[in-house]
Amino acid sequence: MAKELKDLTKRSDNYSQWYNELVVKADLAEQSAVRGCMVIKPYGYAIWEKMQRQLDDMFKATGHQNAYFPLLIPKSFLSREAEHVKGFAKECAVVTHYRLKTDKDGSVIVDPAAKLEEELIIRPTSETIIWNTYKNWIHSYRDLPILINQWANVFRWEMRTRLFLRTAEFLWQEGHTAHATSKEAEEEATRMLNIYAEFAEKYMAMPVVKGVKSPTERFAGALNTYTIEAMMQDGKALQSGTSHFLGQNFAKAFDVQFVNKENKMEYVWATSWGVSTRLIGALIMAHSDDNGLVLPPRLAPIQVVIVPIYKNEEQLKLIDEKVSGIVEKLKVLGISVKYDNSDNRRPGFKFADYELRGVPIRLVMGARDLTNNTMEVMRRDTLEKENVSCDNIEIYVQKLLDDIQNNIYQKALKFRDAHMIPVDTYDEFKSKINDGGFFLAHWDGTAETEAKIKEETKATIRCIPFDGDKTPGKDMITGKPSKQRVIIARSY
Amino acid sequence: MAKELKDLTKRSDNYSQWYNELVVKADLAEQSAVRGCMVIKPYGYAIWEKMQRQLDDMFKATGHQNAYFPLLIPKSFLSREAEHVKGFAKECAVVTHYRLKTDKDGSVIVDPAAKLEEELIIRPTSETIIWNTYKNWIHSYRDLPILINQWANVFRWEMRTRLFLRTAEFLWQEGHTAHATSKEAEEEATRMLNIYAEFAEKYMAMPVVKGVKSPTERFAGALNTYTIEAMMQDGKALQSGTSHFLGQNFAKAFDVQFVNKENKMEYVWATSWGVSTRLIGALIMAHSDDNGLVLPPRLAPIQVVIVPIYKNEEQLKLIDEKVSGIVEKLKVLGISVKYDNSDNRRPGFKFADYELRGVPIRLVMGARDLTNNTMEVMRRDTLEKENVSCDNIEIYVQKLLDDIQNNIYQKALKFRDAHMIPVDTYDEFKSKINDGGFFLAHWDGTAETEAKIKEETKATIRCIPFDGDKTPGKDMITGKPSKQRVIIARSY
Repeated sequence: MAKELKDLTKRSDNYSQWYNELVVKADLAEQSAVRGCMVIKPYGYAIWEKMQRQLDDMFKATGHQNAYFPLLIPKSFLSREAEHVKGFAKECAVVTHYRLKTDKDGSVIVDPAAKLEEELIIRPTSETIIWNTYKNWIHSYRDLPILINQWANVFRWEMRTRLFLRTAEFLWQEGHTAHATSKEAEEEATRMLNIYAEFAEKYMAMPVVKGVKSPTERFAGALNTYTIEAMMQDGKALQSGTSHFLGQNFAKAFDVQFVNKENKMEYVWATSWGVSTRLIGALIMAHSDDNGLVLPPRLAPIQVVIVPIYKNEEQLKLIDEKVSGIVEKLKVLGISVKYDNSDNRRPGFKFADYELRGVPIRLVMGARDLTNNTMEVMRRDTLEKENVSCDNIEIYVQKLLDDIQNNIYQKALKFRDAHMIPVDTYDEFKSKINDGGFFLAHWDGTAETEAKIKEETKATIRCIPFDGDKTPGKDMITGKPSKQRVIIARSY
Repeated sequence: MAKELKDLTKRSDNYSQWYNELVVKADLAEQSAVRGCMVIKPYGYAIWEKMQRQLDDMFKATGHQNAYFPLLIPKSFLSREAEHVKGFAKECAVVTHYRLKTDKDGSVIVDPAAKLEEELIIRPTSETIIWNTYKNWIHSYRDLPILINQWANVFRWEMRTRLFLRTAEFLWQEGHTAHATSKEAEEEATRMLNIYAEFAEKYMAMPVVKGVKSPTERFAGALNTYTIEAMMQDGKALQSGTSHFLGQNFAKAFDVQFVNKENKMEYVWATSWGVSTRLIGALIMAHSDDNGLVLPPRLAPIQVVIVPIYKNEEQLKLIDEKVSGIVEKLKVLGISVKYDNSDNRRPGFKFADYELRGVPIRLVMGARDLTNNTMEVMRRDTLEKENVSCDNIEIYVQKLLDDIQNNIYQKALKFRDAHMIPVDTYDEFKSKINDGGFFLAHWDGTAETEAKIKEETKATIRCIPFDGDKTPGKDMITGKPSKQRVIIARSY
């Protein structure tokens, strides 16, 4: 067994360490020399590219266009919306100078003469710079809606960082839309949450709970924040995407008014929505196992790897020939396939390596397979092996990729559903929270109760779910009336 | 005629103003509230996406992978390579603090307690942070080559900015490769320059001259800089892409050594190469005319627009039906088509607008066309119109797109070749430089002569071209020996 694999901590021993090791060993990302910033390595970035391509298609299919706004935001812009600046002030990277110079002793220093009149903030999010721009674009209801998305890097100075899950710089997309009515904006915010949920379930094979955040957990400056919450294998929640109904807050802060159909001036209604490289962390934690990554075929950079087993060059040549035809047939079906006939690693090492990297299907051809016109097929999700005829094997593989995609989803769904735990008393909740899971509990809707839960159990209200039981009840702590059960969990 | 179009300055009146107006009127980009930073609007960004997709495919086809490195670079890293920091020090945006706070009077200020120990620079380019990372990735010749590209934003504090051509923040790709031998690195630098040239000519329809930069014009830290230089319609040069052979400079600065095949320690050889959103400026200036943009079909966000002309709803309905079948057929061929049957603008306004936006082909269907089973086809490059049968019109359109692509290229090539001007005396050069063009002159290879030309004529040595006449001669100013003619021009 390959060294990398042997060394991987087991999930049951230390889930957190297993994750940290896996990200590095599977060559997805590593810490950089800049505090809190990661290097996304080619294999990790290839997953992000697959995510981007799919999400981008979904955004465009719903009428959105991409654009690009400045990286830097004047401090005064960020300060314009009171809640917004309160939410981000503590995490701002501030640009104060625009030049370096060589000091008398030859060292390179910041030129004190090149101080900016107004400091600039590296965008933690772009509502302010974008709404300042929209002001010039929107005059009449005819200019609406504006449906724009941006793929960008953002920066939030986090103190405790973890690769993909929480980094100072991360990559994301941020949608920023402008609408003539509150209703349209609400519909847009819901539409985009549904797109995120569809992406999570169909492509990431990761079931999610859709719901609304409590006022405490809202995006700074929003009237409502909608979220998709996924359950990781340790029972913790991972907020995987959010969509915000911003009301008229940013329009008011930047004085963006339009002439409506009734010929009256009105402030514009807004939404914003985003997902980030955090999704890669979610993907890893949702499916992977003690052998390494388990990637859903739809997001796997390599869907099929083919490894030859041979005793001599002559055998290899025959296998190469046979495999090249199969590779072509797989490619025609749009399947991304890698034939690894490199001679610098033994087959056993290759097997362990591709398992670690989560390649969904491994095909092996040895001398006997060549004679029998067969290949050994291994599926990464279950590690099951089977011998399959080479005739029409591309059809077999195509179907198997669908099966794996579906199986990974069903497995995650089953796990999630098995860990949705209704609790009726605070004692019961406290006795079970350490084991993880999504707890369905009644909450009186107050920030005080919410704060108490967080302080005493480190769990938070993840969302008030849209679907499911809406039966009223009594808060598990205060006994006050509750409209419906909410989801409480520890989270990443 | 639409107002936007009427207002567009003519190229012959003021080429520079024509460009500035066109970028804004065609909705490509605009100045932002942050000095020197632009907002790339959806139509401009759509061109960038087309460029990105094509270049990315070409990079991947030559074995490159994408990755992502941090936005911020420690000041000490930037200072490690002496020439490099000298080249970029004056343009550095410097992050000095990591937090804002609310002052006693309620205003938001930079928290003086949150000063960074070491300042961070927003990347003007990423050689330093990347080579610091490569240090951990490279141990043996088996780890080489590393062929990585990054799509990213970079920041250079420019004093005089122009949309796309020179902005403080711009989007680009930067390739950073590591090799075991000097020869391999040189080959890589040449390979990527050739890819840039192929992209410029085949996709942007823009002929380029490939060559090497004079030592003065080299990238800060490179041993050689290769360039593609394109001629704009005013006869000025626009450096459109560069590829650098970095030798072992960055490997030495970051102590990146490897065990070579002879089992000896050696410094790694490097290249870097990049193109940016500047290419959009080149694209505009190379082809567009007094009616607006002229886009080569391969990079046009909308390749075909269809406009109906109708007297009443009944007619429109019939045209809608007829056109929908044509739209489908065009889409099947991979042609991006827009059917604009919106009723908020008259046909004449639409015509002018799509001309301004450079849509390569316009199809019009009126009541008579409906009867005759025809459409009026207008090609944007020549503004010629023709009536064409609707039967197999998709094939006609597909061929016409190829014709337009080719015609735009040939036109630019003819213009360029007509303005390649051999000059033998400095007086002749000075008398002609105001009219623009690429001047082929003998140069003695000294920085002194180069500086004199720049100072006295504002023209610079664009490159020592790879192809063409290599006959030796005498420097047009000093009379000293010259190995071959170089290209001298004013430039953007």
